[in-house]
Amino acid sequence: MENCDEAGLSTRFGGRVMKIVVLAASAQSKSVNKNLAAHIATQLAGRYGSEVVLPDFKQFTMLAYDGDFEAEVGVPEGAAQLAEALQGADALVLCAPEYNGGISGALKNAIDWVSRLQPHPFARLNILLTGASPGGLGAVRGLWHTRVPLEALGAHVYPDMFGLGRATGAFGADGSLQDPGIQRQLDGILEGFVAHVKRHRNG
Amino acid sequence: MENCDEAGLSTRFGGRVMKIVVLAASAQSKSVNKNLAAHIATQLAGRYGSEVVLPDFKQFTMLAYDGDFEAEVGVPEGAAQLAEALQGADALVLCAPEYNGGISGALKNAIDWVSRLQPHPFARLNILLTGASPGGLGAVRGLWHTRVPLEALGAHVYPDMFGLGRATGAFGADGSLQDPGIQRQLDGILEGFVAHVKRHRNG
Amino acid sequence: MENCDEAGLSTRFGGRVMKIVVLAASAQSKSVNKNLAAHIATQLAGRYGSEVVLPDFKQFTMLAYDGDFEAEVGVPEGAAQLAEALQGADALVLCAPEYNGGISGALKNAIDWVSRLQPHPFARLNILLTGASPGGLGAVRGLWHTRVPLEALGAHVYPDMFGLGRATGAFGADGSLQDPGIQRQLDGILEGFVAHVKRHRNG
Amino acid sequence: MENCDEAGLSTRFGGRVMKIVVLAASAQSKSVNKNLAAHIATQLAGRYGSEVVLPDFKQFTMLAYDGDFEAEVGVPEGAAQLAEALQGADALVLCAPEYNGGISGALKNAIDWVSRLQPHPFARLNILLTGASPGGLGAVRGLWHTRVPLEALGAHVYPDMFGLGRATGAFGADGSLQDPGIQRQLDGILEGFVAHVKRHRNG
Repeated sequence: MENCDEAGLSTRFGGRVMKIVVLAASAQSKSVNKNLAAHIATQLAGRYGSEVVLPDFKQFTMLAYDGDFEAEVGVPEGAAQLAEALQGADALVLCAPEYNGGISGALKNAIDWVSRLQPHPFARLNILLTGASPGGLGAVRGLWHTRVPLEALGAHVYPDMFGLGRATGAFGADGSLQDPGIQRQLDGILEGFVAHVKRHRNG
Repeated sequence: MENCDEAGLSTRFGGRVMKIVVLAASAQSKSVNKNLAAHIATQLAGRYGSEVVLPDFKQFTMLAYDGDFEAEVGVPEGAAQLAEALQGADALVLCAPEYNGGISGALKNAIDWVSRLQPHPFARLNILLTGASPGGLGAVRGLWHTRVPLEALGAHVYPDMFGLGRATGAFGADGSLQDPGIQRQLDGILEGFVAHVKRHRNG
Repeated sequence: MENCDEAGLSTRFGGRVMKIVVLAASAQSKSVNKNLAAHIATQLAGRYGSEVVLPDFKQFTMLAYDGDFEAEVGVPEGAAQLAEALQGADALVLCAPEYNGGISGALKNAIDWVSRLQPHPFARLNILLTGASPGGLGAVRGLWHTRVPLEALGAHVYPDMFGLGRATGAFGADGSLQDPGIQRQLDGILEGFVAHVKRHRNG
Repeated sequence: MENCDEAGLSTRFGGRVMKIVVLAASAQSKSVNKNLAAHIATQLAGRYGSEVVLPDFKQFTMLAYDGDFEAEVGVPEGAAQLAEALQGADALVLCAPEYNGGISGALKNAIDWVSRLQPHPFARLNILLTGASPGGLGAVRGLWHTRVPLEALGAHVYPDMFGLGRATGAFGADGSLQDPGIQRQLDGILEGFVAHVKRHRNG
């Protein structure tokens, strides 16, 4: 651990270990974004020694935002649970599908509900955006569209993003990325992000 | 009617009347976007003789997009009804709230579900984006964010948009806009949009 | 020609032929966007019988926008010439490189200068956005960024866009696209765009 | 200074003072963005004790990006000077006008040229985006459009932005903002940004 700290690879700082939520924003049981989230979680825990939380997006069930419901009942249970998962985190890695060239409505709806809590967990949260898609563009248009509401909420969205195209066949049986060039690209982004979060939380 | 046709103000063309859906993308019972939608509907029916449909967004209830649900059950009833409302329309006027600097999750979710139908009604649909907000910026950031998925789906989103700031006190008791300068701005956009749709559907 | 008209492929309408400006927004002597522009111009002239103008972006030289210069001298000659080239056109096809994830500064600068003329040629102009890039994403982020100022100026930017990735080796010796699947994709977009412009200018 | 340090208001860290470039991206001699830049520079120097550099954008004259010129001559002098001004800075505050709903072509062109240098100064640079406009929307659409290329270049663009609407009459004879509510809003953003940069550069 000490060596790895010197190499800048550890996520230990201030006497504790960095806590990262890795969230695949997909309610489907089988999803390339879940594959990507699992792979990133493994990398962050193994290589950087982070404490990783890998929640299931489906557990955060909530109705479409409805101001009448909010006035009468409040924020739905799923939104409160998502907020709680994020509250203690040093960082969030989102694995977000692209729907129709943009953020998925389900994810935006979750963000909208969580943002109704005061304080909400997005302000000043360090977020890395990643996404996988079956097509060639790797959800990259969707990731740019996803930045907007998160930045509007005051999150520090890391400038580099990771879009994985042709994701259906991208993972091996052990869950790792088959293409070493793409793996190196992901390594570089994760290393930069972790160093950034460390500096930011430490400063 | 003939005179008004000559003035380019009628929406009669090809032996029929233009059908426009005006949709306030808000599930709340009281909403400035509903006020705006009602006002625009009145203008379109009265001034241009359009056939206007003013559905209640709340009737299109649907769960957050879930691929498992789609595989087992299909598209939810609310999404099918929204698609049906749009199918026969010459144009759609959206009155869309801005949530967190972007499209509302509820609206994006509705678009995502409807886009699963083949064919879906957004391809080649003429859409005018409008939005009202209590603050000074009039939902204008949100409208730009809303363009992206609609254009990705092949809709012709009209370039001009109408954002109504400080919307809470903007309407009089009869539902009209109090500020004549803002009313003229809206008139200009509606007139341009209706002429565009007419040319487009006629050509 | 008559047959081709019946097939919806002709650009003859209202007793004249559609005039389309195809502009590669690149000042470089060798450029994949110039290759793309030349190929699209050939398609539009050959397949649809359009009158095609293929100007050299370099001829529209202009300094970076400077309000002092404008107040003293006016709009630079290059901007006036670009405006003139667009003024009589039924449509514009832009072949736009992506620089740093967005519109090229040179193109945006040209748009800014031309927009100072009253009236400027972008209002109500039908525009198809295409772009080529050496990398895999085919300038697609840049095209979305390019939509914004054009739509803000009132242009009808066609919803479908064509991004050509790995463009360096994409063209054969005769200037045509090597990959038949990509050629079919381009054919579909050009056919849809031409039909749209025809309907729009005819209506 | 020590007291102010304890209050978190000083920009002294690591035995030195924070260096901030405040750049009005306007070549005009009279410009509301220059007024805003001068005001922000005064605030940063006076209240936080930062070392502030306030360059004149006009000194960074450069032709529209031209790959042939680059191949033959290299990066123009103005771009090299802008890069040099940024190289030693801890942060950049941009006061950027909005042209046609987006980033000004002159600014984008400057970014494009500077990005050709290796390494370029935008990677990991902390940037605060502000903008002034004569109209009511305060350049806010333009600021969102400006984020894209800077983030694509790896800059940490601060999530909060400051858009000053109706800027022509916003400043008093002494250069300060007349409206105390708007001044407080700017204070909050500057304070948050300075604290963020300090943490980030310190960590």
